[in-house]
Amino acid sequence: MAATVGKILVYGGKGALGSTCITSFLSQKFWVGSIDLQQNDFANANILVDRDASLIEQEVSILKSLDSVLGSEKLDAVICVAGGWAGGNSSSADFVKNTDLMLKQSVWSSVLASSIASKYLKPGGILVLTGAKAALATTPGMIGYGLAKASIHQLTKSLADSNGGLPAGAQAYSILPVTLDTPMNRKWMPKADTSTWTPLEFVAELFTKWIKNEERPPNGSLVQLNTKENKTTLEIA
Amino acid sequence: MAATVGKILVYGGKGALGSTCITSFLSQKFWVGSIDLQQNDFANANILVDRDASLIEQEVSILKSLDSVLGSEKLDAVICVAGGWAGGNSSSADFVKNTDLMLKQSVWSSVLASSIASKYLKPGGILVLTGAKAALATTPGMIGYGLAKASIHQLTKSLADSNGGLPAGAQAYSILPVTLDTPMNRKWMPKADTSTWTPLEFVAELFTKWIKNEERPPNGSLVQLNTKENKTTLEIA
Repeated sequence: MAATVGKILVYGGKGALGSTCITSFLSQKFWVGSIDLQQNDFANANILVDRDASLIEQEVSILKSLDSVLGSEKLDAVICVAGGWAGGNSSSADFVKNTDLMLKQSVWSSVLASSIASKYLKPGGILVLTGAKAALATTPGMIGYGLAKASIHQLTKSLADSNGGLPAGAQAYSILPVTLDTPMNRKWMPKADTSTWTPLEFVAELFTKWIKNEERPPNGSLVQLNTKENKTTLEIA
Repeated sequence: MAATVGKILVYGGKGALGSTCITSFLSQKFWVGSIDLQQNDFANANILVDRDASLIEQEVSILKSLDSVLGSEKLDAVICVAGGWAGGNSSSADFVKNTDLMLKQSVWSSVLASSIASKYLKPGGILVLTGAKAALATTPGMIGYGLAKASIHQLTKSLADSNGGLPAGAQAYSILPVTLDTPMNRKWMPKADTSTWTPLEFVAELFTKWIKNEERPPNGSLVQLNTKENKTTLEIA
């Protein structure tokens, strides 16, 4: 087995962004583990989550698997890019159902990733969560999505506090995308102007830099990804 | 049966603040319904929630009960004062469990109250949710609590938008207490300076004024309750 330069865990490793991250990290010679509902065949280890399990059941199952996969080894980064999108305001027939889904997909995964980071991150390692630029303001057309992402933003700030429970010198960030250039978004918004969509490779490369301790933003940053004319710039909040 | 001046639904009607609200509203001749895990004997109607039911099961059950209790009648106010408190940072043994509890107690109840308000609130009625002043900043010592309350703050703003799904002219607020003067807080913090705690009667009277369309803050307000030397003042965010 070739030597690796470090270990990364990707929560949501079978999603579009997660898959791109795993491929990119592997090419940089990192060992990469994936946590997701389905297996990522390229990952060095897979931890599968039962969609129908409670949050606490998911925690117990994941921590047990991590113990056997990692033992006493530590991680350079926990990257949580799990999540999804659902629309609707408070009068939508699916409002409660969609909000439930957003809490499960985004908040549960972020909370579990935070718990994992507190146990397995190396001192000075990073935890990255996924918020949304939209949730910095009101989101009446997608209320469940907005409230879930807003909770992740506040979680990020709490984790960055020296009393937030992460190992010494570890840092917590959230990325706040507008629209990611995923196959699903291409499929469902075929006429959209994709020059304002953020390429997944850009995000993976950004993570790689941070993991290598290059160009890290201040601890607790909410990092907006603003893409215009196919160029992405960062805006720190 | 005596004529009532209007109808109010209190979500969390068996808790300390909810009970005080119900007693206060009844004394003002409102019809008051309670939603909670346990019955409030003074309420005109009780809708009981099964603690172990999923969010979607709770929604189905509550809406079915509301249909039989209210029929085509509408509410002047939906007051959601359900919630709880749990501490811990990301490295706490109970971090995930406590966060789960905070999501259920605070976020689920607020989301269900929002759904109810979209269906049963009169035009110009009010929905009040319960946030927390602490969650306007980082909450490293009580991460689950903070992220749950932060999501309620953002939810409040989305609901106040004209496209948020509430009936025409309805308004959404959150109260942001610091510490409420409840029997539980008296019991667990026996040596605290209670002159900075907000009396439950103050909050009930504040709600009554808003319900009567007196001194309402701007739609979407996060209303901080600042108590000093037994005097409470409001600060709008």
